[in-house]
Amino acid sequence: MDKIILDGMGGDNAPKATCEGAVQALRADSNLYIIMTGRKEVLEAELSKFKYDKSRLEIVDCPDVIDMNDSPTEAVKRKQSSLIAAYWMLKKQDDICALVTAGSSGATIVGGQLILGRIRGIKRPALCPALPNVRGGTTLLCDCGANAECKPVMLCQFALLASAYAQAGFNMPNPRVGLLNNGTEEHKGDPLHQETYKYLAQMKGINFIGNIEGRDINYGDVDVVVTDGFTGNVALKSVEGCAKMILDNMKKQFTSTPAALIGALFMMGAIKRLKKNLDFNKYGGALLIGLKKVVVKSHGSSKPVSIKNSILNALTIYRNGLIPKIEEMLSDVDLDNLIGQEE
Amino acid sequence: MDKIILDGMGGDNAPKATCEGAVQALRADSNLYIIMTGRKEVLEAELSKFKYDKSRLEIVDCPDVIDMNDSPTEAVKRKQSSLIAAYWMLKKQDDICALVTAGSSGATIVGGQLILGRIRGIKRPALCPALPNVRGGTTLLCDCGANAECKPVMLCQFALLASAYAQAGFNMPNPRVGLLNNGTEEHKGDPLHQETYKYLAQMKGINFIGNIEGRDINYGDVDVVVTDGFTGNVALKSVEGCAKMILDNMKKQFTSTPAALIGALFMMGAIKRLKKNLDFNKYGGALLIGLKKVVVKSHGSSKPVSIKNSILNALTIYRNGLIPKIEEMLSDVDLDNLIGQEE
Repeated sequence: MDKIILDGMGGDNAPKATCEGAVQALRADSNLYIIMTGRKEVLEAELSKFKYDKSRLEIVDCPDVIDMNDSPTEAVKRKQSSLIAAYWMLKKQDDICALVTAGSSGATIVGGQLILGRIRGIKRPALCPALPNVRGGTTLLCDCGANAECKPVMLCQFALLASAYAQAGFNMPNPRVGLLNNGTEEHKGDPLHQETYKYLAQMKGINFIGNIEGRDINYGDVDVVVTDGFTGNVALKSVEGCAKMILDNMKKQFTSTPAALIGALFMMGAIKRLKKNLDFNKYGGALLIGLKKVVVKSHGSSKPVSIKNSILNALTIYRNGLIPKIEEMLSDVDLDNLIGQEE
Repeated sequence: MDKIILDGMGGDNAPKATCEGAVQALRADSNLYIIMTGRKEVLEAELSKFKYDKSRLEIVDCPDVIDMNDSPTEAVKRKQSSLIAAYWMLKKQDDICALVTAGSSGATIVGGQLILGRIRGIKRPALCPALPNVRGGTTLLCDCGANAECKPVMLCQFALLASAYAQAGFNMPNPRVGLLNNGTEEHKGDPLHQETYKYLAQMKGINFIGNIEGRDINYGDVDVVVTDGFTGNVALKSVEGCAKMILDNMKKQFTSTPAALIGALFMMGAIKRLKKNLDFNKYGGALLIGLKKVVVKSHGSSKPVSIKNSILNALTIYRNGLIPKIEEMLSDVDLDNLIGQEE
């Protein structure tokens, strides 16, 4: 059995979405065991609505809940909360392989650093979502919000972390890495990006293809997009906003006239396939990468299917050995020598 | 007559697109007079394919052409090139009200600063495109690439410049201004954004609604998005890339089966309206704002309709008094006193 710990109270739709998502994940993978943290009676009441293999789900009672108004550093002190208790169990119990939460991003990041801890040598963990691209494949965006201010060494590590994720999570043997910039020429961007370009070009084990632009995120000619957390956050949300604008507009136009409605009936299959191709939740949430174990941060607005996908994605990544892969890549590339100790 | 000068050789599709776009614009506005710069015999040959009012179009022969490999500072020395000759005429002839070019962004920006010059008090010009939003309205994004590195005073000026554009170009009497950040809370972002937030909140004449996120660019709850040129460039191109991904995918799915094809026939009207709503070229190119006269930078890949729209948009902005509006707003807000001289 592979044990996953799930923050039962995290996210806008918890505990409904977390319970239903957990049940769906148990049905999809017979070797999965789930520990859910949260208010026991609440979770039990919700779970009682479903049929599932009860021998593979256990609840750990956590009476406290993190308030969205709590600062992340306040939140990590709440040891009886579902997220923080989950982090402590993940840290202390060797047989738990991953954590999934749809709770507060800030508390997830701070808890990861302060409780679970980083992989030796990694400066900062990063948030790395997997996005659909026009080729029907997947593009990883790292970092998309954990670190608003970055140094070159951090961006180089994001390249390494996300390359390991591409290999362990998506079976890409030699992922192409691009640096998100305001143009493709080598000299583009501010000093941070100019310096990072130089280092990435020399980094062993990284298949660096140069600077890329915002549009390349969705074009699919790059597998890993390296960016600071400020720019990555803006890019990710810009893409989400644009997709929503277009799909909303499509819905409105396609139901605007009787002819369009008839057309839509003929097109049901095509519209369904389109939606599937554009599904931003296919892999659940973003990986919080760089920590000692696998942590998946699902969207705050996660529905059951996102929770299920986040759990299954965490399992895949764990089974394919993400953490040992990162440690191996880190030991192969001498970043301190390349960039210098002062960073 | 309102005189516009058009760089006849600028853009990937020149001179075909520039000539046809000029003819379309002349047909759309009977009070428009166009001066085209470029190789006379080439432009004349292209224009001879169309019927138009020849008394309202004049060609100024410019034998030289800017090479895409020329650096912007090299390019501005080429006084016989279509772009640089146009800038010199725009500067020297009072009766020319605006310049439209689809040529090199770098040369357009450097030429604007070195030849035409900035409005007194403006630190740097910015590129400001107008994007469609989900409400069927328009959102301005300023800066989207002219200034990769910014100071707070520049971002505050972008807010002022784009607010004036919203008024003169889109009839928005009190445009809502948002600061693009990695979250909506006041303390979000790096020191640049934290400081800028403080100043914007105090700026007279600016309707500041606080921090906004990438997704708000397309949601339409904000009229002016203020951002540094690095982030703005990434956001703009991310949105363009996402729109292209979805529309390509839609086309593929909607022609994938006989049923879908039949459906598409019924939906012709709806699909056309959808495309119209999502037309990123509705207003032609981006305004290069902050210079002494109106300058519109059309996309390098501009087709005739984009050139036409850029010309008509330049006319509208000029007629509605953009430049005096900016000067008036600048004199009303004492930025030096607010931010301090050291910036």
